[in-house]
Amino acid sequence: MPLPFSLKPLLLGGALTLLAGCQAMNPAAELRGTGDLGVVVERATGSLALVDTSEREIIDRVEGLGDLSHASVKFSRDARYAFVFGRDGGLTKVDLLTGEIVERVIQSGNSIGGAISQDGNYVAVANYEPGGVKVFASDDLELIADIPATYENASGETERSKTVGLVDAPGNTFVVSLFEAGEIWTLDMATDDPKVQRYQEVGEMPYDALISPSGRYYIAGLFGEDGLALLDMWHPEAGVKRILPDYGRGEKRLPVYKMPHLEGWALAGDQAFFPAVGRHEVLVADTGDWSLIERIPVQGQPVFVMSRPDERQVWVSFAHPKNDVVQVIDTQSHEVVKTLAAGDSILHMEFTPRGEHVWISARDSDHVKVYDTETFEELATLPAESPSGIFFTDRAHRIGL
Amino acid sequence: MPLPFSLKPLLLGGALTLLAGCQAMNPAAELRGTGDLGVVVERATGSLALVDTSEREIIDRVEGLGDLSHASVKFSRDARYAFVFGRDGGLTKVDLLTGEIVERVIQSGNSIGGAISQDGNYVAVANYEPGGVKVFASDDLELIADIPATYENASGETERSKTVGLVDAPGNTFVVSLFEAGEIWTLDMATDDPKVQRYQEVGEMPYDALISPSGRYYIAGLFGEDGLALLDMWHPEAGVKRILPDYGRGEKRLPVYKMPHLEGWALAGDQAFFPAVGRHEVLVADTGDWSLIERIPVQGQPVFVMSRPDERQVWVSFAHPKNDVVQVIDTQSHEVVKTLAAGDSILHMEFTPRGEHVWISARDSDHVKVYDTETFEELATLPAESPSGIFFTDRAHRIGL
Repeated sequence: MPLPFSLKPLLLGGALTLLAGCQAMNPAAELRGTGDLGVVVERATGSLALVDTSEREIIDRVEGLGDLSHASVKFSRDARYAFVFGRDGGLTKVDLLTGEIVERVIQSGNSIGGAISQDGNYVAVANYEPGGVKVFASDDLELIADIPATYENASGETERSKTVGLVDAPGNTFVVSLFEAGEIWTLDMATDDPKVQRYQEVGEMPYDALISPSGRYYIAGLFGEDGLALLDMWHPEAGVKRILPDYGRGEKRLPVYKMPHLEGWALAGDQAFFPAVGRHEVLVADTGDWSLIERIPVQGQPVFVMSRPDERQVWVSFAHPKNDVVQVIDTQSHEVVKTLAAGDSILHMEFTPRGEHVWISARDSDHVKVYDTETFEELATLPAESPSGIFFTDRAHRIGL
Repeated sequence: MPLPFSLKPLLLGGALTLLAGCQAMNPAAELRGTGDLGVVVERATGSLALVDTSEREIIDRVEGLGDLSHASVKFSRDARYAFVFGRDGGLTKVDLLTGEIVERVIQSGNSIGGAISQDGNYVAVANYEPGGVKVFASDDLELIADIPATYENASGETERSKTVGLVDAPGNTFVVSLFEAGEIWTLDMATDDPKVQRYQEVGEMPYDALISPSGRYYIAGLFGEDGLALLDMWHPEAGVKRILPDYGRGEKRLPVYKMPHLEGWALAGDQAFFPAVGRHEVLVADTGDWSLIERIPVQGQPVFVMSRPDERQVWVSFAHPKNDVVQVIDTQSHEVVKTLAAGDSILHMEFTPRGEHVWISARDSDHVKVYDTETFEELATLPAESPSGIFFTDRAHRIGL
């Protein structure tokens, strides 16, 4: 099976390069609250559009962030700074108030995402090349810990694995999955010297993961087999168990055009909604025993399956070539209640903190659209350069986001 | 039965008095994120202590807020402004960045608390005297709507009821309970002209209420009978039903020294934890069918029963005279795992957004203490004048808080 990742051999593997260290102090910056701010990743131009979710406007632009294809963003504890994880291994700290880059390091050759610790002191990055996790101080991006993702391959040789699905958990812990190794690791950051706990043979090729809003359940999607791997963080002694195994047993799997994402958590009461890999389906599991309740047919291969904050709707985005719409599922009836044509190559969705609006990025339409989630009325269209990820600052206050 | 409220006859009943309207623009104010800010209500001095939860410090003080006994606070959508609901009917908008009062109105004779709408545009206040709800524009505190809480008493006369348990809900709706009337009302604020829906005969003397984090379940505690009243906001056609009826059947009720509060929501998986009125017990209900699972003995009459954000612990504060400790319940074992002596006359607790710390106010010790919720280590003691309510800005992003 071909790897689902496009691995670019890169020059800077492992090197830590400090590019900028200016302490931003822009007197022209406006005194304002940061609770209704957010960023839109503009992958074509390596820039961030800074947005105001009250005014539904782009208020500033930050450039010089490198390769932002597949970039993701976390926020500092005070909701002032964005940490941007670039595909080229760049980690950039951006001041949302001044629009300036505060710090920037090239910390690996190729990375996939990161997390910020419960106490806000540590920023961790999951790296592909070289495979492992690096932990930085959130204030100045000083390297605190470097944890290579080593494992023994089938021939008994020690190799390094790509790391994916890195999240924060309560107890100042990070959790990460190892793609080739088929492992899940927890990193306890009670001190600067992380304690690593390894869970082996969790399943074939974990490709992404999420953690429940309470931080209790860490769930990794598996690319090498049907099913997901579940670690109950309250009962680590029970180890990792497989859930929703063989959900497509005996059926032909479609070519996978884009890997689904498990960022976020689509939960409604005791139901969890997941994207099925390579199928035109959203899976519904019972969070009591993690059994499969239903497979909801949708119009394409789901990528993001996200719950509106009030859990009454689940919104689904799709893989190429059926990625010009999103669909809305009612969490009680399990029916698709709306199909919205939000633009070409829809890449991401983000709800406002209390769920009244959703922002949707359409890369090939070069716009972000804002909708009322109750009436589906279109409220705004914001021009952006090949927009992908959208992230709002309330994530600073959520476990696992 | 004596009313549990101390009703002060007041002069300004119904009058709307504009006290101040300065647009704060303090050049000395610091450019900073507002995600780690909060306020502590200082009831003796009518002031707010502004706090920084990263530094665990008091950073400023705002005075001139009137009678703040039993005051509560909501935050604007951008997490810059605090709306303070005073016992004397004062509604004050405070700028957390400049420490200045932006607007202040005396909007009734006696009020108990308020809420801010999902879209952030409306601030509603629940008033005792005269009984009803007033809705204001959040930007300038202009009066938008005045909804008297009228009902027909046993003699067929129209009276006004005190209003309690006012919360926001999805769909830009407010929900409120009427104490004497025994009713629950929803106010739909899709426009400036609220649509009112009344639910009658919900139970005897609803004294406070909460809404679940998803905004689905509105639950009012009943003072006039054992039990609570539940409105499923997803199924308003089903009306209000009684839950946990007769939880103390046949048992003698103790004198109630302080009414419990239902602010917040202590939830862990499919369990909800409530304070029992007049008993040394925390009640645990199954959120599937709302049946009583267990009554957990605690050291006094519970007032606040609050879940740590990761739902692994429930923290309990108590009524006079046993209010010099808080107790911590493990949500899996239902055992009290810790009793913490945090000071004299403990009035409130607030968790940091991701739950690593808890702040506890002890009125008669004139301090707020900060604890690590995992190790129970004491991290800080902050002096404050008769501190009561503690509120952090992440509430701006939560339904019902």
